[in-house]
Amino acid sequence: MIKVGIVGVGTVGSSVVRLLENNIDVIKARSGKEIVPVLGIVKNLDRKRDVDIELSDDVQKLLNRDDIDIVVELMGGVDEAFEVVKQALQKGKAVVTANKALLAYHRYELEGIANSIPIGYEASVAGGIPIIKALREGLSANHIESIKGIMNGTCNYILTKMMNEKVEFEDVLKEAQELGYAEADPTFDVGGFDAAHKLLILASIAYGIDAKPEDILIEGIESINSEDIFFAKEFGYNIKLLTIAKKIGDEVELRVHPALLPKSEMIAKVDGVMNGVSVVGDFVGETMYYGPGAGGDATASAVVADIIDIARDGHNSPMLGFKSSIKKGELKLKNQDEIETKYYVRMEVEDKVGVLSQIAKILGEYNISIESFLQKQSQQKDSATLLFSTHRCLEKEIQSALKELENCEFVNHKPVMIRIED
Amino acid sequence: MIKVGIVGVGTVGSSVVRLLENNIDVIKARSGKEIVPVLGIVKNLDRKRDVDIELSDDVQKLLNRDDIDIVVELMGGVDEAFEVVKQALQKGKAVVTANKALLAYHRYELEGIANSIPIGYEASVAGGIPIIKALREGLSANHIESIKGIMNGTCNYILTKMMNEKVEFEDVLKEAQELGYAEADPTFDVGGFDAAHKLLILASIAYGIDAKPEDILIEGIESINSEDIFFAKEFGYNIKLLTIAKKIGDEVELRVHPALLPKSEMIAKVDGVMNGVSVVGDFVGETMYYGPGAGGDATASAVVADIIDIARDGHNSPMLGFKSSIKKGELKLKNQDEIETKYYVRMEVEDKVGVLSQIAKILGEYNISIESFLQKQSQQKDSATLLFSTHRCLEKEIQSALKELENCEFVNHKPVMIRIED
Repeated sequence: MIKVGIVGVGTVGSSVVRLLENNIDVIKARSGKEIVPVLGIVKNLDRKRDVDIELSDDVQKLLNRDDIDIVVELMGGVDEAFEVVKQALQKGKAVVTANKALLAYHRYELEGIANSIPIGYEASVAGGIPIIKALREGLSANHIESIKGIMNGTCNYILTKMMNEKVEFEDVLKEAQELGYAEADPTFDVGGFDAAHKLLILASIAYGIDAKPEDILIEGIESINSEDIFFAKEFGYNIKLLTIAKKIGDEVELRVHPALLPKSEMIAKVDGVMNGVSVVGDFVGETMYYGPGAGGDATASAVVADIIDIARDGHNSPMLGFKSSIKKGELKLKNQDEIETKYYVRMEVEDKVGVLSQIAKILGEYNISIESFLQKQSQQKDSATLLFSTHRCLEKEIQSALKELENCEFVNHKPVMIRIED
Repeated sequence: MIKVGIVGVGTVGSSVVRLLENNIDVIKARSGKEIVPVLGIVKNLDRKRDVDIELSDDVQKLLNRDDIDIVVELMGGVDEAFEVVKQALQKGKAVVTANKALLAYHRYELEGIANSIPIGYEASVAGGIPIIKALREGLSANHIESIKGIMNGTCNYILTKMMNEKVEFEDVLKEAQELGYAEADPTFDVGGFDAAHKLLILASIAYGIDAKPEDILIEGIESINSEDIFFAKEFGYNIKLLTIAKKIGDEVELRVHPALLPKSEMIAKVDGVMNGVSVVGDFVGETMYYGPGAGGDATASAVVADIIDIARDGHNSPMLGFKSSIKKGELKLKNQDEIETKYYVRMEVEDKVGVLSQIAKILGEYNISIESFLQKQSQQKDSATLLFSTHRCLEKEIQSALKELENCEFVNHKPVMIRIED
């Protein structure tokens, strides 16, 4: 018999307890063990919870129980969770966590502390999709060329809605909040930070790269409006909040931002609150993984899969995919300025003679050439909206050009830029 | 160091050797071991092969070498391959195989012989997609409600082409043969047998069901023509060769046949030679796995992933997913006659008064009611083509009705039926 203690009995924690009880028949048949949740740790003992296990508000009570084999950490947050997981590992208990923020900051420290004690974290990336396992084990023979992920359901819900209906960001966000698809404070989701945490975890498994959120390019979807949607539709794109990891020579790009994706790509078809991750390996080619990225039951499915793996003694892959580095220091994080891609730009300019040629001149000075161009009447008087896409150019050049354009007197607002991935 | 012997050095075997050599850096970093292919067994030593390992035509030479730890079986076929794999296991060698026919017939015997010696077979289903791992480990906490798979690239290439262009089955098949997407004798693919082998493997992992190809419903795509494509488009469907495993109560349906799938479903978007598998679990909901289902390099990716798992000592999951049965005899294979779904039917009938009412009468006698109906002029003189779909009804009733209709004098050809899955 395997005894499980759960720290944090909210939506996911309750689902874990329910799953372990409801599916005890298959879990026992597949793992060969009886797996029983015996203790839950909560902050507030007064709040009524729909689970039938002993509860306590003292995490030390759980950590000190020698009969508990696996600690499931679902408390969230970074510092306190790190302390709990560290202590559990030091006491020889296996850990299963769904905490992406914890891993975004402390995954390598935890790997060191754990040594050979299993840490499962399938639930931390893309909810119910077994992407950690696919990448760490299923594709382990490949050099990973790229990962493109849609890993934030809130953003994908909002952007899908904006693509399908004529609605603006703020209105859809409000609706998403009412439906429970977005938090009261949505910054963590719509700002791209949640997706960035997940990307960093995948980047470790794919490339052995130890990066932190502050090391990588993170942009949210707050500036996207219906003009951008219009352009995307006109030129056969979908707009998605994309997490990108891409190996170019000895460098790896890691970035999170809204992106224009050709509609025909499989990953561009991932709509609504669903998640999808496309991985390209040098031998396998492209594989894609699709499913629910959040929700109590879907996340519990991943948590309990990790528990079953531990019960099967099957957790022998190195936690972050590598037993040793590929070649010491071979792959390094690419400087954001040196990213090269195509860009889409939206500008509000004064509708007068000579403006276009001045814009073209500034772009030319930064070696930027235009691929597609659309001019529309603006809702503002005497203004025009310019929508254009560029050929491939350097991030630092487009950033400098946009800064220069922003300061031109004929430009009414800060230009909005979205990267194009095709 | 792990030494690997390969039985069968054709397309996939050569890719495996090349992969082990090209990607030695990541493979060593991820597995902690040096993995070296040391001997290949071939039928014909005279044929030139593009690999740089010792070759022999004597499989016993490989089986008798004590220094070879893993035998990779890529020879294909059932009886001879079974003998080789059995002997390898009896000598304590781990086995990795891509041989779906072998597993379709002998997977439970092999599990018994292997006992605790690892057998990897990720490559046997859906090529480069790690679907075995996803189902056996990633989704292990779930009762699997259904699996819908597009697992034959030849059929999917042909059907995609028929959907996108106005071409008939025979012409696309010929083109696919010229492009190398179809075998000279295509029966095994277009008849659904290849997909059925894969389905049986997945059904074991999902449900613990021990079925053989002859136990399940298998129909191919040979009878589909442009009229069916027309109907599908008209009513928002795609036509796919679908493998279906579905749990209904204590019974499991296993079937392989062309199916009309709503275009909006993610699995219906899997086009061309690509494969896709959608799995619904009771807690996780729907997840889908997409990628190349064939080809030397993609298949080698799966073969070497299994080798790495063995090198990591990570192959501790039970071979077919279960350490013991769920509840002895609980799940059983559903009788084909009792399948209940919706059906599409195409008929060529004499274009005269009273025919429709006679057809409706016969359908009514078998409790079949029509959902959609289209009548078109036939290319045959004085004939009409009837295309219709039914509401849900029993397989045995539609089969009986179609047999009765076939015998009516006003029916010109045997009616063609395609099941609808929505």
